[in-house]
Order: sequence, then C-alpha cells, then structure tokens
Amino acid sequence: MSGISLEFHEPETTREEMLIATFKALSTHGYADLTIAKIGDEFDKSPSLIYHHYDDKEALVLDCLEFMLDHFETTLLTTCTDDPRDALLRFIDRTLDACSGEPDPLVETLVELRARTNGDAFYDHFTRSDSVFQAHLESTLRAGIDDGVFENCDAERIAATVLTTLTGALYRGVTSDADADISATRSELVGYLEGRLGVDDGFDSRT
Amino acid sequence: MSGISLEFHEPETTREEMLIATFKALSTHGYADLTIAKIGDEFDKSPSLIYHHYDDKEALVLDCLEFMLDHFETTLLTTCTDDPRDALLRFIDRTLDACSGEPDPLVETLVELRARTNGDAFYDHFTRSDSVFQAHLESTLRAGIDDGVFENCDAERIAATVLTTLTGALYRGVTSDADADISATRSELVGYLEGRLGVDDGFDSRT
Repeated sequence: MSGISLEFHEPETTREEMLIATFKALSTHGYADLTIAKIGDEFDKSPSLIYHHYDDKEALVLDCLEFMLDHFETTLLTTCTDDPRDALLRFIDRTLDACSGEPDPLVETLVELRARTNGDAFYDHFTRSDSVFQAHLESTLRAGIDDGVFENCDAERIAATVLTTLTGALYRGVTSDADADISATRSELVGYLEGRLGVDDGFDSRT
Repeated sequence: MSGISLEFHEPETTREEMLIATFKALSTHGYADLTIAKIGDEFDKSPSLIYHHYDDKEALVLDCLEFMLDHFETTLLTTCTDDPRDALLRFIDRTLDACSGEPDPLVETLVELRARTNGDAFYDHFTRSDSVFQAHLESTLRAGIDDGVFENCDAERIAATVLTTLTGALYRGVTSDADADISATRSELVGYLEGRLGVDDGFDSRT
C-alpha cells in the first residue's frame, strides 16, 4: 500500500499550521489515539492555541478533513485533462493502491471517521468529498469524449459507478482481508470501462 | 429503505435467546447506545445471565454478528439455485434497498462496526462475512452457467466485483447523501452483468 501523501504548500496562517500538524498526527496515530499533545509535537507554536480555535478534537479533525479535501480538489482539477485515459487509470490505481496490503493509519482513519453515524458533520463532509471526486471523474470522462479518445457515454452514471466501486474497495481493503477480491475488481472495472468508453485496443497494458 | 429483517427459528438455547434479544436491541438502538439493560428488555430471563456468558458488550455483539451470518448463510444457501437470474437480481436489489433513503439503525450499526479498526475480531468476522456472500454469488453464477442461462464466465472475478460494488453502495448510502449515485450504480452494474453473462434480452425490466 502506498497510503495517502499530500504535498502541502508552506502554511500561511496559524490555522493552516494547526491543520497540517493535525494531518501529520492523524497519519501517524489515527483518530482514537489522537491527542492535542500529539498534535503539539508537530506544531511549532503553543498547543494552547488549538483550544482557542476549536471546541474539541472532532471539530479540529473535521476542519482538517475539509482542508485535505480542498487540497485534493485543487490538485485534481489541475491534473485531470492532460491525458484522460491515463488520468482515469491513475485515479483508479492510486485508490486501489491505498487500500491493498498493509493498512495505512490515515486511510484507516478516513474509513472509520466516515462510518461515524452520530450527527451530520461527517455525513456532510463525506457527501461533499464524494461530489469532488465525482466531478473529477466526470470531467475526465468528458475531456476524453471531447478529445475523441472515449466514445460518447453517460459520464455522470459511469463516474458514479466508478466512485461506488472504488469506495467499496477502500472500505473492504481496510476492514477485511480482501486483496484478491480488490485485484479481481480492478480487472473487471477496467474491462467495464473499455466496453463503455469504446477503448478497443485495451485500456491498460497491466491486465 | 427496507432494512434488514431476519426470521429466526424459535431459540433452542439460552445463548440463542440472548443473541436474538441482542439483535432486536441493536436493530432499535444501534451499537453506541446499546446497554445490557436494553438487551434485557428483549430477554425473558435475568439480564445477569448475559454477564455470565460474555466478557463485554463487544464480545456479545460479535457473537450476535456471527449468529446473524450463520442465519444468512443457511437462508442464502437454500434459495440460491432456483432461478439464477432472479436470485442475482434479488441479491443486488435487497442490498441496494437496504442502503437507500432513510438509514436503518441495524444497517448503520453494521457499517460502523465494520469500520472499527482496533483489533482483529471484527476484521476476521467481516472477512468471513464477505466470503459467505462471495460464495453465494459464485454459486448463483455457476448455477446459471450450468443451466445455460448465463454464458461461460469467470464467476469468481464477477462475484468479487459485484460484492465490492454493493459494499461500496452500502457504505456510501449510510454515510452520505448518495441515493442518485446508488441508482446510477445499479443501472451500470446490471448492464455490466448483461454484457459479461450474455443476457441479450435485458437482465431486468426495471432499467
């Protein structure tokens, strides 16, 4: 598993410094074991500033997730239309790499936080998170149609299906011994896309 | 959402009585709010018997999940080969019905428990749970091939893909506002199966 790595810009505000420190601490310790003291280890200023900005750990982590998502969105939007075929395959493989083999604490944490069904805060965040990835997949498919690389197709429906399948792989990979099934799912997903997008010469030299 | 309904046989042992009471209490209250007192409300004998049999709530709930899975396995195995086409579609629709619309507390509970990444107990349970559903899907596909209803295909890979996709739908449906995406995923999944299984006249009159 490669895990999730994010290259943040230099923090410009104290909030950004706190959120990058939270991201680092979450990546190492997960949510359950996260404490303000552990975040403080990644933070150059006084940890008491964190209490000043956030009511509790949940509010801080939720803002950290929003910050990560904003970062993903910016990165995804700037890379999606160079080569639609490659962009689609890269998105699939990055996700599947992140849920195969040994669990990464940050991926585990995201899967666990998403499943917290008490209250609307995480529900709303993950609804927005899905819509960001849905928009990325849709615009990649539409770029491919515009370029003549993909056949005309229902980009919205196909994007939703890819996202549901990848989310299932992520959830299964973190919560069960599912490497063989994830590998099988990848082959079938790529085959399904070849058919739907009319990629006659094979989408992927790896299958 | 229809939720999960199980018709249990009359309990034959005190353990079965406790587990059915636990199932009912979980269905109503979810995991976080579950107490021995609430299980006691569904149980005709003294709740103190529960402490005698189980170290803690987690051990009791885990045994309840195993009991539910045994029940599912028995029910699935006796219904899988009557009409493979109908059995496959019914499995897909029952799962998707259980994760669309208003959340059912038991479905929420299963999604949340699966995401508990502290320790091996739930990981092992959900690995076994997936293998039960994988075996059901595989035997349904093989029955269809044997009957000449489905073209020859890689039943193992297709079953794994269906299971990953449905698990993704379940997880998304409980944890985000995903009804439209789940509906889109259903259409595409059925279309994928029509192609892979050679069902030329359309798998499903609903799409």
